[in-house]
Amino acid sequence: MGKMFKVTTFGSSHGVALGAVVDGCPAGITLSEEDIQKDLDRRRPGTSNITTARGEGDRVKILSGIFEGKTDGTPIAAVVYNKDADSSAYEPLKNKPRPGHGDYTWTVRYGHYDYRGGGRGSGRTTVGHVIGGAVAKKLLALRDMRVVSHVTQVGDIKANQVAMSLIEDYASKNPVHCADQKAATRMEKKILEVKSKGDSIGGIVEALVFNTPAGLGEPVFSKLDADLAQALMGIGAVKGVEIGFGFKLAQSTASATNDEYYLEGKEIKTTTNTSGGIIGGISNGMPIVARIAVKPTPSISMVQKTVDLERREETEIKIEGRHDPCICPRVTVVAEAAVAMVMADHLIRSGFIHPCKI
Amino acid sequence: MGKMFKVTTFGSSHGVALGAVVDGCPAGITLSEEDIQKDLDRRRPGTSNITTARGEGDRVKILSGIFEGKTDGTPIAAVVYNKDADSSAYEPLKNKPRPGHGDYTWTVRYGHYDYRGGGRGSGRTTVGHVIGGAVAKKLLALRDMRVVSHVTQVGDIKANQVAMSLIEDYASKNPVHCADQKAATRMEKKILEVKSKGDSIGGIVEALVFNTPAGLGEPVFSKLDADLAQALMGIGAVKGVEIGFGFKLAQSTASATNDEYYLEGKEIKTTTNTSGGIIGGISNGMPIVARIAVKPTPSISMVQKTVDLERREETEIKIEGRHDPCICPRVTVVAEAAVAMVMADHLIRSGFIHPCKI
Amino acid sequence: MGKMFKVTTFGSSHGVALGAVVDGCPAGITLSEEDIQKDLDRRRPGTSNITTARGEGDRVKILSGIFEGKTDGTPIAAVVYNKDADSSAYEPLKNKPRPGHGDYTWTVRYGHYDYRGGGRGSGRTTVGHVIGGAVAKKLLALRDMRVVSHVTQVGDIKANQVAMSLIEDYASKNPVHCADQKAATRMEKKILEVKSKGDSIGGIVEALVFNTPAGLGEPVFSKLDADLAQALMGIGAVKGVEIGFGFKLAQSTASATNDEYYLEGKEIKTTTNTSGGIIGGISNGMPIVARIAVKPTPSISMVQKTVDLERREETEIKIEGRHDPCICPRVTVVAEAAVAMVMADHLIRSGFIHPCKI
Amino acid sequence: MGKMFKVTTFGSSHGVALGAVVDGCPAGITLSEEDIQKDLDRRRPGTSNITTARGEGDRVKILSGIFEGKTDGTPIAAVVYNKDADSSAYEPLKNKPRPGHGDYTWTVRYGHYDYRGGGRGSGRTTVGHVIGGAVAKKLLALRDMRVVSHVTQVGDIKANQVAMSLIEDYASKNPVHCADQKAATRMEKKILEVKSKGDSIGGIVEALVFNTPAGLGEPVFSKLDADLAQALMGIGAVKGVEIGFGFKLAQSTASATNDEYYLEGKEIKTTTNTSGGIIGGISNGMPIVARIAVKPTPSISMVQKTVDLERREETEIKIEGRHDPCICPRVTVVAEAAVAMVMADHLIRSGFIHPCKI
Repeated sequence: MGKMFKVTTFGSSHGVALGAVVDGCPAGITLSEEDIQKDLDRRRPGTSNITTARGEGDRVKILSGIFEGKTDGTPIAAVVYNKDADSSAYEPLKNKPRPGHGDYTWTVRYGHYDYRGGGRGSGRTTVGHVIGGAVAKKLLALRDMRVVSHVTQVGDIKANQVAMSLIEDYASKNPVHCADQKAATRMEKKILEVKSKGDSIGGIVEALVFNTPAGLGEPVFSKLDADLAQALMGIGAVKGVEIGFGFKLAQSTASATNDEYYLEGKEIKTTTNTSGGIIGGISNGMPIVARIAVKPTPSISMVQKTVDLERREETEIKIEGRHDPCICPRVTVVAEAAVAMVMADHLIRSGFIHPCKI
Repeated sequence: MGKMFKVTTFGSSHGVALGAVVDGCPAGITLSEEDIQKDLDRRRPGTSNITTARGEGDRVKILSGIFEGKTDGTPIAAVVYNKDADSSAYEPLKNKPRPGHGDYTWTVRYGHYDYRGGGRGSGRTTVGHVIGGAVAKKLLALRDMRVVSHVTQVGDIKANQVAMSLIEDYASKNPVHCADQKAATRMEKKILEVKSKGDSIGGIVEALVFNTPAGLGEPVFSKLDADLAQALMGIGAVKGVEIGFGFKLAQSTASATNDEYYLEGKEIKTTTNTSGGIIGGISNGMPIVARIAVKPTPSISMVQKTVDLERREETEIKIEGRHDPCICPRVTVVAEAAVAMVMADHLIRSGFIHPCKI
Repeated sequence: MGKMFKVTTFGSSHGVALGAVVDGCPAGITLSEEDIQKDLDRRRPGTSNITTARGEGDRVKILSGIFEGKTDGTPIAAVVYNKDADSSAYEPLKNKPRPGHGDYTWTVRYGHYDYRGGGRGSGRTTVGHVIGGAVAKKLLALRDMRVVSHVTQVGDIKANQVAMSLIEDYASKNPVHCADQKAATRMEKKILEVKSKGDSIGGIVEALVFNTPAGLGEPVFSKLDADLAQALMGIGAVKGVEIGFGFKLAQSTASATNDEYYLEGKEIKTTTNTSGGIIGGISNGMPIVARIAVKPTPSISMVQKTVDLERREETEIKIEGRHDPCICPRVTVVAEAAVAMVMADHLIRSGFIHPCKI
Repeated sequence: MGKMFKVTTFGSSHGVALGAVVDGCPAGITLSEEDIQKDLDRRRPGTSNITTARGEGDRVKILSGIFEGKTDGTPIAAVVYNKDADSSAYEPLKNKPRPGHGDYTWTVRYGHYDYRGGGRGSGRTTVGHVIGGAVAKKLLALRDMRVVSHVTQVGDIKANQVAMSLIEDYASKNPVHCADQKAATRMEKKILEVKSKGDSIGGIVEALVFNTPAGLGEPVFSKLDADLAQALMGIGAVKGVEIGFGFKLAQSTASATNDEYYLEGKEIKTTTNTSGGIIGGISNGMPIVARIAVKPTPSISMVQKTVDLERREETEIKIEGRHDPCICPRVTVVAEAAVAMVMADHLIRSGFIHPCKI
């Protein structure tokens, strides 16, 4: 992922370790394990009653790329070791692909699949994203840019809009990570209700980038919005991406939604931001706004129909264990990471940050 | 664009020519200029009263990569020459970026912009997409795969669902390219109404791929849906992408939307297709379904506010000329092209088509 | 080829056209067809009695990427049309791969080969290199860098070293493009002698880059010398590449060849330049020196043994037509192009030239 | 490095760990830590009196990509932890770049350098190469391909040619890794002589690939020989690469060196192999032969001139510690690794090995 700021991730839910290698981070940036750890902690389950109760006490370890507390320009490798997990719970699922999971498609592609929690297909691989994102955020900070995310919808409960400057603070105040406190309360209730049935529910997560300079993005095949769409759609469970007004624009006229230009002092701004800060694939200096549709977590404890791949016959499964009734709160930090990596890559590619040293 | 099936495009609205180079197409595939021309003709404006009346009598010319009527494994270059266009009509727009167009962002990025119809930012650059897509479709045909597209929404008029096998035929019967004939009539009326006001309107285009084998796509950073999202969001005017049920999944529970497996003879299928044929970033053998939100064409003849970049003062513009009141009908073939290129690339990358020769 | 300054070439010896697309050239650089034409003219055969008498009156045409005489930041496509060539002369060679040419290996790879002069395997494809190189040189000129090349050996005739500042001027004075005039005379005689026998001879070409800043190149997998080696070895007929003292270092001790540092005013220089300006994969500010081993042109008019691929039996061929008895003089400008493209790419990648605009 | 079989390495001489991530290795290949360890052991110093006496008891640990003893298709991460090294010995070298090392160029590029043994510029980073190469060799083994290497020259002592089938066995019998036993004895003596003076000496290493199928390699910008040249030149201390007869061809005529075709049963072979198994950038089925010029190890204990970067004044240094008087014996396994990675990548890219599963 990325062209100048490149992130490779590795590891699966039940292997030895998960991690990422970040290649192309300029030298001279202060980076500590704590910088990464704080985002990993936000991703971690078990922090409230609406996330899975599995404890993942992930501790990150940086293996390379740091010299005297600063990045040295060489690849930064960081790992999180998996605890020895008991995979016996997964035995009954062997050869029986779980609906909504990649078990079946992986089997076709690789001739096998890791039945222990999805293997590399597991949501746990987003640990790698979060590592890459944490490094990317340090780059963004060099230009005072900041990525913020929050949950704007759970099921049919939609949050009211909150002033952009308040989103981060407000969203941190409730376990749903929704900036509209009233909606948050209703969402939480909804999630617990769904959880009690052994079911799960989807939602929408919004990520914003403040202080983006105008001029980021390439005009045809690597448009900023196209790269954001790729990174965001690449997160497990995401089935839709929209920038700015997104699908609402399908119902609109240009006279109502074209962002007109005006001057604020010497700066050119737009009166509205239906474009979500990106026009013609290039940032225009307004806040970047991206939203993703997150499907309900496919692991549910209800009985589901499937096919036994070995016996080649129809069968049923019931997935035991504790799962997230709504993954949105934990997706927020992953969405931030995906956005941050794309922005960091384009900051270098577009000449805003020197590729070698700060 | 692409990794094994790579497409590079070039050219702008008012330059000498537009074109594409397709690198990585296996040898031995019958390919003629007519194969490309027929898709270019579908993209061409002026074919009905709901598209712009500009005549673009584009004729494609293949420059390389063909030997005795077949691809020879080397890069295929194809060009379309621009007619000598009178760019004087664009003079009044100089230094005054049009709202909703990339004029301003291009200026920031490149230090100038081609005020003559948007230059490389023009929708005309999709000629390159269509060329690449036409070659890609020949590859897909080797495996009996077919890409089909239609307009499913214009403004608030939504088409009813039509049986998948009928979409292509039905959509070809009206200028809107909507498979639901009744909705098509209403859409056409709506577009003409908007056109009469000098305004424009958005809509939704859906692209489907039939006969996709299971097992296409890479699991983490180059998921099939992520690459589709990138390619589709990369089309000008597209502000949203969804796969399968997309944003509808945000409102759903897993028990209602998990695609359960069953056997159809020896084949594994899913009872529903909320996932749009892609699970865990890999195709599952069901039809691929992708939808894009297309914003209203930003060129409208109403007066709009903007800023004079040279004088640094607020001003107004009125864009003369004939423009598409709804670009959706013409976007269909471009969406097909984007999807076809991604599928062709993954067919090679996933080992379904030999990278060198058929 | 290239990562930020990317060049794609296309076309073959007997197709419609040859050309290149340069993607990633910053906006604002003055570029005309004449800039490219002058290097194409240096590549052209028929300029003396020691090159092939075939007339290739190549005229380049720029199709895109230029706005008002300057690069506009978008892909620059340029083509050279092939004359309608009579390929009947090649008929006797059908199915009989010429020794030393890629005919056989291409057949294996692509299931066929273009028997008409090697098709894409022809030396004529270096037209694309020269186009890319000419654009790259314009970038280098922004930093006063210059690429120079000359022939240093033909057969066993080795040129004496000439002061670096004189190479370009001296080498332009004789058809061999050798800076040592006396050696040039002997080389010319040698080439004519070989030519009279219907044979051909190899040689060595050296390319130098002056005014390279220190700090160019990535340290592990994209070292400056590694990328130069790839680009130079990628030229047809090249079978060896060395940087600085190259193979001579295999016979040396470190005490005799380590380049020691000293100060020239405020600048750090090395007393010797055995490293050819590159240490640890990164330029050190001294002139870049690269040499390539060019094999004798494989097309000779002597009878040679081969295998009839269709009949699967051993046979003989005699290649008619006029061929270069020594390709080195014509390789010089191609070597310059390869070197220039790599340097341009790294100038952008290492932050010396802004990726978008000058 | 690589396009389908991609290797990223990380780590430096005095950081926490070194390692590699191999992305794109098909599923189903048996791979153990022992497979990697045995090549790491061959790279390790301290195995004879002609290599450095530093003990690097490197043990590799695989972190991901293996499921039930086989590759699972996902990225394989493997690490080697560095011992806590005492870097105080390097203190006197601070700010005084060692001639022949990358210290100075790294400082320019990254604004600092890791004075402790060269950091990422250290030869120790080839641990990553060896890991990648060991995985690549497993892929090559699927097609019975084998990479072999040996030292053919040390200083002016040249080994006599040995039958190809004997090279591996013979070279393993002496610490120089030279297949000509008599030459090996003289080489060893030479190395010890140089060592006693605190100096070092260069040499030539040859790598061969047996059983390569014809048809590997892309014809223009990713020729097999070009990619080999890049990979081999990318090894520290390598300053020249030649394929087949290499620089000898510069002195030859085509009539003497064109490889003519003949039939061996049904197979097409060449009577000679001056091309080193690659014609037109594509393998022809004959053994691949590549040779590299290895410069004398720049770390010597003699006094050398340099510049103090901080005080900006000329000074001298004397490098203490134990260093390789000739690095060639240890480079052999690294050259094998570089070659193996390129071959593995092209095996997948050219369709000889399925990209997903075996």
